[in-house]
Amino acid sequence: MPSCAVTRRVHFNAAHRLHNPAESDEWNRATFGPCNNPNYHGHNYELEVTVEGPIDTATGYVLDIAILKRLVDARVSEVLDHRNLNLDVAWFRDRIPSAENIAVFCWEAIAPALPAGRLQRIRLWETPRNYVEYTGG
Amino acid sequence: MPSCAVTRRVHFNAAHRLHNPAESDEWNRATFGPCNNPNYHGHNYELEVTVEGPIDTATGYVLDIAILKRLVDARVSEVLDHRNLNLDVAWFRDRIPSAENIAVFCWEAIAPALPAGRLQRIRLWETPRNYVEYTGG
Amino acid sequence: MPSCAVTRRVHFNAAHRLHNPAESDEWNRATFGPCNNPNYHGHNYELEVTVEGPIDTATGYVLDIAILKRLVDARVSEVLDHRNLNLDVAWFRDRIPSAENIAVFCWEAIAPALPAGRLQRIRLWETPRNYVEYTGG
Amino acid sequence: MPSCAVTRRVHFNAAHRLHNPAESDEWNRATFGPCNNPNYHGHNYELEVTVEGPIDTATGYVLDIAILKRLVDARVSEVLDHRNLNLDVAWFRDRIPSAENIAVFCWEAIAPALPAGRLQRIRLWETPRNYVEYTGG
Amino acid sequence: MPSCAVTRRVHFNAAHRLHNPAESDEWNRATFGPCNNPNYHGHNYELEVTVEGPIDTATGYVLDIAILKRLVDARVSEVLDHRNLNLDVAWFRDRIPSAENIAVFCWEAIAPALPAGRLQRIRLWETPRNYVEYTGG
Amino acid sequence: MPSCAVTRRVHFNAAHRLHNPAESDEWNRATFGPCNNPNYHGHNYELEVTVEGPIDTATGYVLDIAILKRLVDARVSEVLDHRNLNLDVAWFRDRIPSAENIAVFCWEAIAPALPAGRLQRIRLWETPRNYVEYTGG
Repeated sequence: MPSCAVTRRVHFNAAHRLHNPAESDEWNRATFGPCNNPNYHGHNYELEVTVEGPIDTATGYVLDIAILKRLVDARVSEVLDHRNLNLDVAWFRDRIPSAENIAVFCWEAIAPALPAGRLQRIRLWETPRNYVEYTGG
Repeated sequence: MPSCAVTRRVHFNAAHRLHNPAESDEWNRATFGPCNNPNYHGHNYELEVTVEGPIDTATGYVLDIAILKRLVDARVSEVLDHRNLNLDVAWFRDRIPSAENIAVFCWEAIAPALPAGRLQRIRLWETPRNYVEYTGG
Repeated sequence: MPSCAVTRRVHFNAAHRLHNPAESDEWNRATFGPCNNPNYHGHNYELEVTVEGPIDTATGYVLDIAILKRLVDARVSEVLDHRNLNLDVAWFRDRIPSAENIAVFCWEAIAPALPAGRLQRIRLWETPRNYVEYTGG
Repeated sequence: MPSCAVTRRVHFNAAHRLHNPAESDEWNRATFGPCNNPNYHGHNYELEVTVEGPIDTATGYVLDIAILKRLVDARVSEVLDHRNLNLDVAWFRDRIPSAENIAVFCWEAIAPALPAGRLQRIRLWETPRNYVEYTGG
Repeated sequence: MPSCAVTRRVHFNAAHRLHNPAESDEWNRATFGPCNNPNYHGHNYELEVTVEGPIDTATGYVLDIAILKRLVDARVSEVLDHRNLNLDVAWFRDRIPSAENIAVFCWEAIAPALPAGRLQRIRLWETPRNYVEYTGG
Repeated sequence: MPSCAVTRRVHFNAAHRLHNPAESDEWNRATFGPCNNPNYHGHNYELEVTVEGPIDTATGYVLDIAILKRLVDARVSEVLDHRNLNLDVAWFRDRIPSAENIAVFCWEAIAPALPAGRLQRIRLWETPRNYVEYTGG
């Protein structure tokens, strides 16, 4: 029974600001540049969620991609889409909403809803020229 | 001397909120839905600026695309990139920062820097699935 | 009050076969080649619907893109998505489901739901390398 | 002698239907939804074939990408392009033509034509938002 | 009988240098910058050829896209692909191979092979961020 | 402290010719076909540089993507962009400028500027349909 990885791309957009409240304003401006704008800026995020497992011979599926889509919509899009990550999302109260940390958030939101070991990779595009990948550790 | 149109694509990102202060909160929520989030959301904007004119036989150019890029960077990117359109950009104080109005802003910022009649079209992608086009009137 | 054009991209997929029953099998094979396969083939169609009009000063919108999306979903996607265009869609009973004719179908489905003169253009990508545009006549 | 992986993207399109004849019509409709349409639907498939190996110092190549393209055209495109996967392709007579299984088909078609261990990955995009990856086991 | 426009995208790549031999080396370096490199540089060009006309009721086609592809291959790709535009293509002996002039070349190569008035637009992408459009005059 | 991989895409274009001076002209023409054109041809190269490491809790970054961009610009773009790889770049004097070897060049240019083990992958697109990946050995 061969194994395969299936990926679903999902779109959301959000405002954020890169700012570490434990550091001075100078440190924040020097470290984050325009990303430290106190009035926020924003992005269209393109999220890819990859799940691996054996191909079910009855369906030909590793996992019905429509089920994966609903799961990602419920656990990620409903929480992050059209939000201010710093102000509206509790998980970021004590974490900086960098692309890296948003990828970790997506992993933690999605992995518990799948059988252990099935979530393979989160890839998150912050702009058409930058993306991050997180594989769980 | 044949005429041609040249287009440069430029990227910027920004936070915004769709809200009409002349209307009630109910009207705003019903009209703009999640785009009315008081804490803002954001987008990667992909801007296409199109300039037309005769091809200069000495250069083969309608307009050196590097000059067009610098012009758009100075008049649009420096003003909108990594900004909150509602709070940081004076032009939007009495206009709603919809994609349509951002396109009008770009036209008004760029057209005066070019010979009359040369700016042909502003196309602005707000997401990979939505764009607006403005041709000056 | 400036005018602007707004475009929404929508995805659907379908099976079809190019075949003219008024002509011989030889003519059909010579004219349509592999697109004449009696068992059908299929495509992911990427549809762009463009609506123009004045920008409403109360909303900043020509037309709420969410309303346009619902309209296209109801009148196009619900009728064509995951369908066999030759067998499942009455409009194609006496028309060949070429990209050109699918674009005309989309125009006729959408235009009556908008104020007269507002629908500006249907653009339909049949593959990443081919598209057609129809402007209503 | 450093090793490298080279990838060629190839396009084909096809009709298919997800249906398990060993199960009831109700089960099939509930499991596959619109993908179970008895009249078929279809997709543009975007296939990426990745081959790894040492870089040949005489050519600078792992494998001439033109040779890889001809191999994929002969063993995949000629068999699947503009076809109905359920009716026209023998390999799918007792397998459901899901993206996962099509990826396995591509691996089995291409791997024997390459030296052992050289085929690294099959990635198959079924729509611009879904893809599967198969690495041979 | 409705009219429609069909577009085919075609890929080619070439080396070129922007240089006006009637001007001094200083003028050329100041005008063209790195594009004046005497040893040439190069691009992947993405060409879109758009043909308009009535939809033929017997075929559903404005023009069989396979015929358009062969025409563009024979008249453009075979002449420009994998070539040095300055040295290998006679048409550019007394014209600078800017994107604008390459678009004019494509128009002049393709228009005579079509019925009068059918070629609507040449669009040529020189990079993913720059393109030019030529409509014949 | 979770680990993550961050990727930056960078664009450059160049002319090149595939030619092995140790072999005959016939061998070169037979091996490289149109890529052996003595007058060169060219490409838009799309380079992806991937760096992995722990997420810094003070910044939320693995590595500030703006620092990565400047590093790649200084060590790759300034050396390869708008150049003839065969004539202008010393590293290719005794290596064929295939996509595979350009990827090795990028690795050798970037890896020494990062802490040991941080550079994870170089991916280089030579055309929209071909890419190579190099992971350092």
